[in-house]
Amino acid sequence: MDIEAINSLPYEDFVSIFGNVVERCPIIAAAVWSGRPFPSGAAIEAAINAFIEALPESGKEGILRCHPDLAGKDLQSGTLTPESREEQGAAGLDRMGAAEVSRMTRLNAEYKARFGFPFVVCARMNDRRSIVEQLRERLGNTQAQERARGVEEVKEICRLRLQSLVHSDQKHKSTFQSVSVRSSLR
Amino acid sequence: MDIEAINSLPYEDFVSIFGNVVERCPIIAAAVWSGRPFPSGAAIEAAINAFIEALPESGKEGILRCHPDLAGKDLQSGTLTPESREEQGAAGLDRMGAAEVSRMTRLNAEYKARFGFPFVVCARMNDRRSIVEQLRERLGNTQAQERARGVEEVKEICRLRLQSLVHSDQKHKSTFQSVSVRSSLR
Repeated sequence: MDIEAINSLPYEDFVSIFGNVVERCPIIAAAVWSGRPFPSGAAIEAAINAFIEALPESGKEGILRCHPDLAGKDLQSGTLTPESREEQGAAGLDRMGAAEVSRMTRLNAEYKARFGFPFVVCARMNDRRSIVEQLRERLGNTQAQERARGVEEVKEICRLRLQSLVHSDQKHKSTFQSVSVRSSLR
Repeated sequence: MDIEAINSLPYEDFVSIFGNVVERCPIIAAAVWSGRPFPSGAAIEAAINAFIEALPESGKEGILRCHPDLAGKDLQSGTLTPESREEQGAAGLDRMGAAEVSRMTRLNAEYKARFGFPFVVCARMNDRRSIVEQLRERLGNTQAQERARGVEEVKEICRLRLQSLVHSDQKHKSTFQSVSVRSSLR
């Protein structure tokens, strides 16, 4: 879908298409619709990131809490959103042995007990091995560090979900890549 | 469920129970969980209202845009949330004749074209006749007036949804009643 078509969408269609670019937070797409027309897909991304940044800390924690566990019960029971299912599948989280699942469950539980929100990482930029490594490593951070890091991962997930929805001519593609959060974190 | 039990809920259960007290905005319940323990159900309501009030105007419009039309296509196709289905049913919106439905559809479309968000009213405090009357009447307001009025209706819907979830001993019941938004609007 190109940007002209996106800018002409009534809010209902916009929310129906972009409502899950931030997991289970359709309010965010619904809010940024107020700022149309957007000059590019990157401008939609920027509006979403600005909305997220303007939230109080509790709101950012709220976004994290709307995310499912990685390799958690929603994956096992088939209740993930289509986007999450695809991403967790791409990282190989749906092909783990019982021992791996149980280790992941233990680490997720430890993380949630420690921070009060789930471990969020952009599954598409990782595989199951690097996810477990990062989960172990990030368990050593402070809550404030993890809240900020989780929000950066949310933005990265959002960027990739947007990229799959907005028509990527060369200009947009390179714009999206230039604002990669992961690159800036390295 | 009494307040002690609510305060001991992990965020996943809290969001699963309270995630739709503001229609399709689980982020709000997920955010206010950060402020537990709550002394009462009214304190949960106050935290939700404060969160909503702190949002930018686009965020308030975003909340409104997460609401379904009254007597709209989600009611016809059975895709309303359980809470909305019950409320629209209680107002008799599921028992309208074809002419009534088509009038309602026309008025909803006019409202959305004018304001960029749907007409939101607490269906439980109304019947289909008063809903149509208010829809006609509110079409004459400004966008700013309707955004503010819609948000007050969202809070009223939230108050009643919370009331059905939080154990109502006499004290809580009267606390909830004393903060009725509709009363204060009269």
